[in-house]
Amino acid sequence: MRTQVAIIGSGPSGLLLGQLLTNAGIDNVILDRVGKDYILGRVRAGVLEEGTVGLLQEAGADARMHAEGLSHDGFSLAFDGRDHRIDLFALTGKRVMVYGQTELTRDLMERREKTNGVTIYDARNVEPHDFGGELPFVTYEKDGLSHRIDCDFIAGCDGYHGISRKSVPEKSIATYERIYPFGWLGILADVSPVSHELVYANHPRGFALCSMRSTSRSRYYIQCPLDEKIEDWSDDRFYEELRRRLPDVHAEALVTGPSFEKSIAPLRSFVAEPMRFGSLFLVGDAAHIVPPTGAKGLNLAASDVHYLFEGLRDHYLDHSNSALAAYSGRALKRVWKSVRFSWSMTMLMHRFPEGGEFGQKIQEAELDYLTHSTAAAASLAENYVGLPY
Amino acid sequence: MRTQVAIIGSGPSGLLLGQLLTNAGIDNVILDRVGKDYILGRVRAGVLEEGTVGLLQEAGADARMHAEGLSHDGFSLAFDGRDHRIDLFALTGKRVMVYGQTELTRDLMERREKTNGVTIYDARNVEPHDFGGELPFVTYEKDGLSHRIDCDFIAGCDGYHGISRKSVPEKSIATYERIYPFGWLGILADVSPVSHELVYANHPRGFALCSMRSTSRSRYYIQCPLDEKIEDWSDDRFYEELRRRLPDVHAEALVTGPSFEKSIAPLRSFVAEPMRFGSLFLVGDAAHIVPPTGAKGLNLAASDVHYLFEGLRDHYLDHSNSALAAYSGRALKRVWKSVRFSWSMTMLMHRFPEGGEFGQKIQEAELDYLTHSTAAAASLAENYVGLPY
Repeated sequence: MRTQVAIIGSGPSGLLLGQLLTNAGIDNVILDRVGKDYILGRVRAGVLEEGTVGLLQEAGADARMHAEGLSHDGFSLAFDGRDHRIDLFALTGKRVMVYGQTELTRDLMERREKTNGVTIYDARNVEPHDFGGELPFVTYEKDGLSHRIDCDFIAGCDGYHGISRKSVPEKSIATYERIYPFGWLGILADVSPVSHELVYANHPRGFALCSMRSTSRSRYYIQCPLDEKIEDWSDDRFYEELRRRLPDVHAEALVTGPSFEKSIAPLRSFVAEPMRFGSLFLVGDAAHIVPPTGAKGLNLAASDVHYLFEGLRDHYLDHSNSALAAYSGRALKRVWKSVRFSWSMTMLMHRFPEGGEFGQKIQEAELDYLTHSTAAAASLAENYVGLPY
Repeated sequence: MRTQVAIIGSGPSGLLLGQLLTNAGIDNVILDRVGKDYILGRVRAGVLEEGTVGLLQEAGADARMHAEGLSHDGFSLAFDGRDHRIDLFALTGKRVMVYGQTELTRDLMERREKTNGVTIYDARNVEPHDFGGELPFVTYEKDGLSHRIDCDFIAGCDGYHGISRKSVPEKSIATYERIYPFGWLGILADVSPVSHELVYANHPRGFALCSMRSTSRSRYYIQCPLDEKIEDWSDDRFYEELRRRLPDVHAEALVTGPSFEKSIAPLRSFVAEPMRFGSLFLVGDAAHIVPPTGAKGLNLAASDVHYLFEGLRDHYLDHSNSALAAYSGRALKRVWKSVRFSWSMTMLMHRFPEGGEFGQKIQEAELDYLTHSTAAAASLAENYVGLPY
């Protein structure tokens, strides 16, 4: 088989890139080592920047998001018994869209089917080859047979654990990492959220986040030690702990109900440089991971897709390679800004064992400053809604 | 002897408070364990916020500062080979004044003499008494004799190592501290500065600061390990290391010449709460220490003086105790904001062994963000010129 762009990974970034290419008449094939149901079974966040929303529009996969997604003009910072609203729209003229990543992936899959895009699911042992040379190709196995796809370019959209980044010789890649000494214990439950907007809470007992998937489905998180066991956390214990970390106005609004998902996720910052190796381009989680504080992961994958699509479109339609040559540099400039923001919001909101009482006081001083300074609130807000591409 | 306000310590905060009280007709005595020459021999920083300049005007000690001080509209952030100017005046409508603390202390001493203020130098074993009760007093020894000053209030302006804070029972005081794992190696030399404004440099080899006392006297600093020995640092070695940490534009402008002061200072953040104990009030370094990054120490002492003077003036002239009762809370609110700013600027500009390469990249991303975001630059600038009282 031959295609122009082979895309490894059919998560949101692979699907979004594929759709933009398909719409532009650029041939592409998506490969995934697992099946559709497995991909749609993953529970992920979903706070979308306007840039991400714009790309989904461009892809033609925005109808359900605009009908069912929740447009948010602000969010709350809770600390020291207080609740302070960051008015995103007043500060930046922009909003964010709350729409689950699973739904967004489903929409992109449906759009791909409608436009006859080719996705090969359950492709085992996918491997990119010769991306340093002139004739790159991808191999995989399916139903006991070996297959080969010749292509011009390979897009590695296969996440942190994927084969794409791992195919690059170690000496060609620089990595930067920070592991945070705690995790997020999260639940999903069909109860109405404590607030119609997100609440990020700093509390001496640890961070808490009140988020949602819809007006009747809540997603709640509490910071916990990494060695915590999910079995030890009944729904009652979870809600009790969450309530203690919220100011009264939200604690009193907390509606409890059985959770149908409960998990502990570690927090990590990770960046690999560069993001291009010959004809192989890393996109999204394949090149970088951010902690979920501030909801930048999916949005960062979308901005990578934006830069890569520009490069591929200019290459095929305008016979110009300058945007493609600039991909790694442009993408990384924005990546580091988002990595910095996610890191700083993580540092601001969580309890760090090593920071001690001084650390907690510094956090409270920063939060207090944020509530009194338009400049500081505007800086937080412009990062939260997403810096320009 | 009897006075209304006994002030322990004749550094700038004690002298400034004394002068404001004297001008308002409130009787006060300043005590210091050392002599005038010793106090004027201390080398200290001197970047004054407009609020501090205003207080010196109010004290009537501003003539020489306005004639000889350097008014600065901005400063430079140097990193990654670049130099980026933060235009303080454009961002905030405010300026800072570069004027050495030693000069300012001298001006206040002269003003005190002219207005017949009483200062007792070389007062040994100064001790505040009964500040928890109705009849506070201060004792000291001089020329072999014991003395006692009865008073209404005691102002502890005697610095971190002074007796004032140490006189408070440990259980009544909460302290918060952060020690930084490096020091500042500084020199003073009669050479013209590399730039007419301050240059704060982030470099993989460590922080550097190009400051000045006048257009012909430079004050330069480089970050160094705490166990570094001054004897190992010849002037040549110092200038060579400084040059390596500066972008070309400044490195090429560096004029070298013999230093006449060279020292290594540790960096620390420290806050004691509360700042009032009965009739004893802690002011400035007696209650809090900040690292010198951002030059907040003296300015924070001045804002404490502002709040305390308001309280004492209202007490004596308006027979109202509400401002005095609010002193600790008001002062600490501003203290924590400045402690946070000094901490964050220290974290942004220095090399931290534990931060590794990730830490350096995060710093560069934040500096890059600062050069592209008006909101972020405005937030930095409003802290640098001084938050409102």
